[in-house]
This record gives sequence, structure tokens and C-alpha cells, in this order.
Amino acid sequence: MKLLEDRIRKDGKVFPGDVLKVDSFLNHQIDVDFISQLCLEWKRLYEGTEITKILTIEASGIAIASVAALHFNVPLLFAKKTKTVNISADVYTAKVESYTHKTTYDIIVSKEFLKPCDKVLIIDDFLANGKALEGLIKLCEDAGATVAGIGIAVEKACQRGGDLIRSKGYRVESLARVSSMSVEGGVEFC
Amino acid sequence: MKLLEDRIRKDGKVFPGDVLKVDSFLNHQIDVDFISQLCLEWKRLYEGTEITKILTIEASGIAIASVAALHFNVPLLFAKKTKTVNISADVYTAKVESYTHKTTYDIIVSKEFLKPCDKVLIIDDFLANGKALEGLIKLCEDAGATVAGIGIAVEKACQRGGDLIRSKGYRVESLARVSSMSVEGGVEFC
Repeated sequence: MKLLEDRIRKDGKVFPGDVLKVDSFLNHQIDVDFISQLCLEWKRLYEGTEITKILTIEASGIAIASVAALHFNVPLLFAKKTKTVNISADVYTAKVESYTHKTTYDIIVSKEFLKPCDKVLIIDDFLANGKALEGLIKLCEDAGATVAGIGIAVEKACQRGGDLIRSKGYRVESLARVSSMSVEGGVEFC
Repeated sequence: MKLLEDRIRKDGKVFPGDVLKVDSFLNHQIDVDFISQLCLEWKRLYEGTEITKILTIEASGIAIASVAALHFNVPLLFAKKTKTVNISADVYTAKVESYTHKTTYDIIVSKEFLKPCDKVLIIDDFLANGKALEGLIKLCEDAGATVAGIGIAVEKACQRGGDLIRSKGYRVESLARVSSMSVEGGVEFC
């Protein structure tokens, strides 16, 4: 999506270690009118696909997923991160390795809010190694819900997480796919 | 606001220790059409007040604050929680005691996104002892920004945090003010 690629070129900042910061408009300060346009693109891409719920993960996915839920006119559910292993009978859990923080954490959703009848659109701001996404997919599978699709704002295609998820048969719609980046040369898209 | 009080009576659950769970529509699963109506009420209440930015705190405040930012047509900024004391020159920080988790954490925002010219509307889903709100106010004060107002969905008025903040001269608009609650008797409003 040219709109997002242009914005990343203009306002994104590349730091050593393949770190792309877009925190002026996507995941710290959020330009809600802009992310609303991203959500409308997912709405267009998933036209005709039945969606009953948007699922995301705290914290930085919540803003964009909220606006997506408004456009799709369905409830939003966000998976909570927890450091304590939660074996409550009331929740579905998955383990996620954090690429950024080099730790593992658990994510949980209440069983009450994810059902076999749900057709879930998973939304997140970033896709890198795909570990968070795998966790969210596992929550859906454990619930017997259908993953109707996945919407990602920025995919770091160089990290192969998206390819891995697609190879399992899931539809991943990333609005910008970064093929390479460097502090000197900036960001290149697929 | 009757709409919110009715929804809390219908879908809120009271647990021992004055715990009010509204996670079916406000802060785990989120009924975005419903919270959009709450945001329109803040829009009405703050009619004529200049607002340049919405500020909230991760994670459960982000959904409602995102929708508020859409209605107010201003950017959203969310304060991030961190366990490590962050003394970077690039961020404003404040300490917050968590009532729920009995711990203290730091919240941060990038200095880049909070400026003396900002007129900030602070939005959060809950106000209990007011510690998170005090932290958010401190971030604004440190930045030299003006706190134009505060919008809270559910205020636990029995915990006095709201009274404390109001006594300092801040305008706090809570859409439902819980005066008391019990497992047997349910929720009473001011």
C-alpha cells in the first residue's frame, strides 16, 4: 500500500540491528485518521469474507485493531501478556518468544470471548519472526475458532515470519512489506 | 451516563475485594460501537475546549482512547509501562503504584510527542485510587503541556482517587461513578 510505504519513508527511523521505529504515527503516538485508512484497505481486501471478531495482542496492536473493529463492525478482543504461567480453566494460553526483548511470555484470552463459531481477523502493527502471530493463531485453534485472515501493517519480510505463516495456509495481508533496511539507505519494500 | 450504568448493571461482574469486571465490553473484549458512544459523550462534554492530543496508558486504556482520538480528530499518545527505570534523556517518566498488582512500575512517553503547546485530554477506562492518572498528569506537567481535561469511563468513587484529582483543580468527567458494590447486591452509582 503506497500510502503506508510513503509514510514509512517519510517518518520511519532505522536504527542499527534492523530496528524500524514508526512510533510517531503507528505505535506510540498514533495518527488515528491515518490508521483508519489502513483499516479501510483491510476492509476492501477482506470484502466478502465473514468476520465476527478482531483479535490482537497488547499493547501496540490495540489502537489499530480498535479502529479496524469499528470499520468491520465487530467486537475487538485483545490477548493479554502475562509473566506468570496461567493455567486457569477460564483462559486459552500460548507462549510467545519476544524478538525485541529476548524473553518468553504467555498470552491469554478468556474462553468466554472466543468460540468455535467465531471467524477471526487477526490484526497487528508488526510482523517480524511471526512468534506473536503464531501465539494468536494457537489461541484461535484451541478455541475451535476459524482464522478468517490476518492483517498486518508492517511486515519485515526479511525475517521470514510472514512466509512461514503463509506456508501453513493462512491468508496474510500486509500493507507494507519491508525487504531490507539500513541506517544509511533507509527502507526498501518488496 | 445512563447508557454506561445500564451496561455495567447488565454485563458487569462483581468479585470479592471490590473487583468490578467489565471485560466483556470495555477492557478485554471491547464493544467498539458502544465505546464510540461513550467517546461522543466526552466530545459533547468538552465542546469548546481546545484539545490537541489524547493521552492514555497501556494497555486497557488504548482501545477507548483510540476511538476518542478519532472523534476528537487529534493524535493519540499512549504511555508505555516499563519495569526498568528509564532515565533516557528522550523520555518523560513517572512512577505508578498498581492497586491491582501491588507493584510499582514506570511509565514513559517520548519527549518528541508531548510539547508545551499541547492541550491534553487524558482518557482511561478506570479510575480507582488515581495513581495511574497522577502519573499521566506528571508526564504532562514535565512536558509543560496543559491538561485540558480528563475522561474516565468507570470511576470507583468509593476509592476517592477522583476526588483527590478534582481537588487539585483538574476537570474529571467520569461517565459512570460507582458508589458501592457487592457480590450479592451488585453495583450502585453516585
